[in-house]
Amino acid sequence: MEKRIYNFSAGPAILPEEVLKESQENLMALPDVGMSILEISHRSKTFDNIFHQTKEDVKTLLDIDDNYSILFLQGGASLQFSMVPMNIMPPKNKADYIVTGAWAKKAVKEAKRVGDVNIAATTEETTFNRIPKQNELKLCGDASYLHFTSNNTIYGTQYQTEPEVGDVTLVCDASSDIFHKKIDVNKYGIIYAGAQKNMGPSGVTMVIYRNDLLERSSDDLPTMLNYKTHVEKDSMFNTPNTFGIYIIGLVAKWLLNMGGLDKMYETNKHKAGILYDCIDNSNGFYKGHAEKDSRSLMNVTFNLPAEELEKKLIAEALNAGFNGLKGHRSVGGLRASIYNAFPTKGVEDLVEFMKEFQSKNS
Amino acid sequence: MEKRIYNFSAGPAILPEEVLKESQENLMALPDVGMSILEISHRSKTFDNIFHQTKEDVKTLLDIDDNYSILFLQGGASLQFSMVPMNIMPPKNKADYIVTGAWAKKAVKEAKRVGDVNIAATTEETTFNRIPKQNELKLCGDASYLHFTSNNTIYGTQYQTEPEVGDVTLVCDASSDIFHKKIDVNKYGIIYAGAQKNMGPSGVTMVIYRNDLLERSSDDLPTMLNYKTHVEKDSMFNTPNTFGIYIIGLVAKWLLNMGGLDKMYETNKHKAGILYDCIDNSNGFYKGHAEKDSRSLMNVTFNLPAEELEKKLIAEALNAGFNGLKGHRSVGGLRASIYNAFPTKGVEDLVEFMKEFQSKNS
Repeated sequence: MEKRIYNFSAGPAILPEEVLKESQENLMALPDVGMSILEISHRSKTFDNIFHQTKEDVKTLLDIDDNYSILFLQGGASLQFSMVPMNIMPPKNKADYIVTGAWAKKAVKEAKRVGDVNIAATTEETTFNRIPKQNELKLCGDASYLHFTSNNTIYGTQYQTEPEVGDVTLVCDASSDIFHKKIDVNKYGIIYAGAQKNMGPSGVTMVIYRNDLLERSSDDLPTMLNYKTHVEKDSMFNTPNTFGIYIIGLVAKWLLNMGGLDKMYETNKHKAGILYDCIDNSNGFYKGHAEKDSRSLMNVTFNLPAEELEKKLIAEALNAGFNGLKGHRSVGGLRASIYNAFPTKGVEDLVEFMKEFQSKNS
Repeated sequence: MEKRIYNFSAGPAILPEEVLKESQENLMALPDVGMSILEISHRSKTFDNIFHQTKEDVKTLLDIDDNYSILFLQGGASLQFSMVPMNIMPPKNKADYIVTGAWAKKAVKEAKRVGDVNIAATTEETTFNRIPKQNELKLCGDASYLHFTSNNTIYGTQYQTEPEVGDVTLVCDASSDIFHKKIDVNKYGIIYAGAQKNMGPSGVTMVIYRNDLLERSSDDLPTMLNYKTHVEKDSMFNTPNTFGIYIIGLVAKWLLNMGGLDKMYETNKHKAGILYDCIDNSNGFYKGHAEKDSRSLMNVTFNLPAEELEKKLIAEALNAGFNGLKGHRSVGGLRASIYNAFPTKGVEDLVEFMKEFQSKNS
């Protein structure tokens, strides 16, 4: 087998080795089927079983009630940026958006094509280094929904708990932290997530959709952009990304086998804690980008005293088998993406490497 | 290894065994990369090489000039049903559609949301058992484009050559026969194809797009539905289906290695010929659904003298290792989908089985 290295990529990102192994073993032919998962009809009995088991396991992981549909769509979060306002901004055609990063801004851009967007809060002036506090929110008062991004990969910030918005429908882009802990889905109208960070390969988007919202969707919408199509056809109006759903199913099973999302959350807190401790105990050599109470468990962003040192660390780390540590160009510095599948050992090894680098270069 | 059976599924459908083998070998980690294709960033050097090589190989296979873009999008042909009219029906807001099946009808439905649709021809009254002849076409005269479906999986019909439409932009849904032979791409404005029949796994759509059409796309369109977005960002506005593109790349390489599309076409004609000969020489026991000059090389549809016999054959065939022969409910009977990757040996074995079945049951 090819040697595997530590993959800190922000997305598409690391998957559990057990998931890769099982899909590899069965890639020529699923057991007792004689055909590859890549070759079977989305309407076959075999795929139907995979599809329904995946939905059941997702429901179990997040304790989702039957008044929600679990959809597997295409087009990434970026297509949801349009589908959400096109479907549920009517009839009031107003929505609140909290802007905590580049993806939220893109969501706003698409929403403005449909109706009035109220920016309930933004932290852009401090390079999105924090999540707005509850008392900073300026809701417009009659919004069809409020949209927020639960985790911001580029800046390394994350909501610790949902914003409180009273009766307003809560919509969340959870692309980069879905499944990192259990959340109370009942608080939400729509949760959507591109799979490629914490759930599976790219090319499939999971949407958790509260069914009463369907009444807002006009029949005039393009069929593929209408949630009604996908809820009524159970994601099978046309051929979904069957392989992507299969992998999400394996990841869900992996999460259940390891004890579920409360257990995952404990591991994630421990894992990120190791890295943040290293940063906080470095006497300022490593400096976190995000404010402490906004820190992400998924993406740890930090800088060094000089850009030259950052380049040096990234290059030396790559040689040592730590891949993908370069920060996003809009923040600079470093970013360690340590999603669910990233092993604790990898963080421990990185911290050891960082301490050694500091002692050699300060 | 799991035993593989003969897979006649209409789509998702059989892939070349060499492609499955190579992707299986490298699923834990690409050579010299240490990470799976499922885990690497779409902006990484590794994926960038795969992506560009795939585009180059597609261009080579179909002799595509540089005034065309090769896009890899999501949402299947069904999303193209909307994107095509939203982008290129303006400014005249009229289009011609040839209706040769269920998919063409769905395309018409979405186009009607945008502007006036002229049905240039339809063969619905004979259950789409043929392709309309050139002299049957009633073009509206000032259409922005004419849309047709090159191969109709459900009915087993296929265009032998493109409809002639003068200066009108030709748009083709080639989902079920792309790459089955070389076509003259220069005759087309847009060719689109869901990958899951003749090219790869589900969840990725290839669009061959003539760049001068971009001037028709309004900036008011949702960003993800605007071809301008995808041409300008080279399919990387957001994360594409990286695994799907990788498999398409392997399939393209497989086609080039076997001698290209002229060679593939010879094989396809030979392969389908074996099955059609069996039907034509069965003294009416097997009866083709499609008229002879409209027959598809990809999907061979036929009936038996009685529905009971059809059920019996399908059941016995399944036991003998021939999977997926049941026809679509709207036509009934049987359908053998024998795309590029389907081995000639499998058709020979099926024909032997069919002859034996006939001698036992007539």
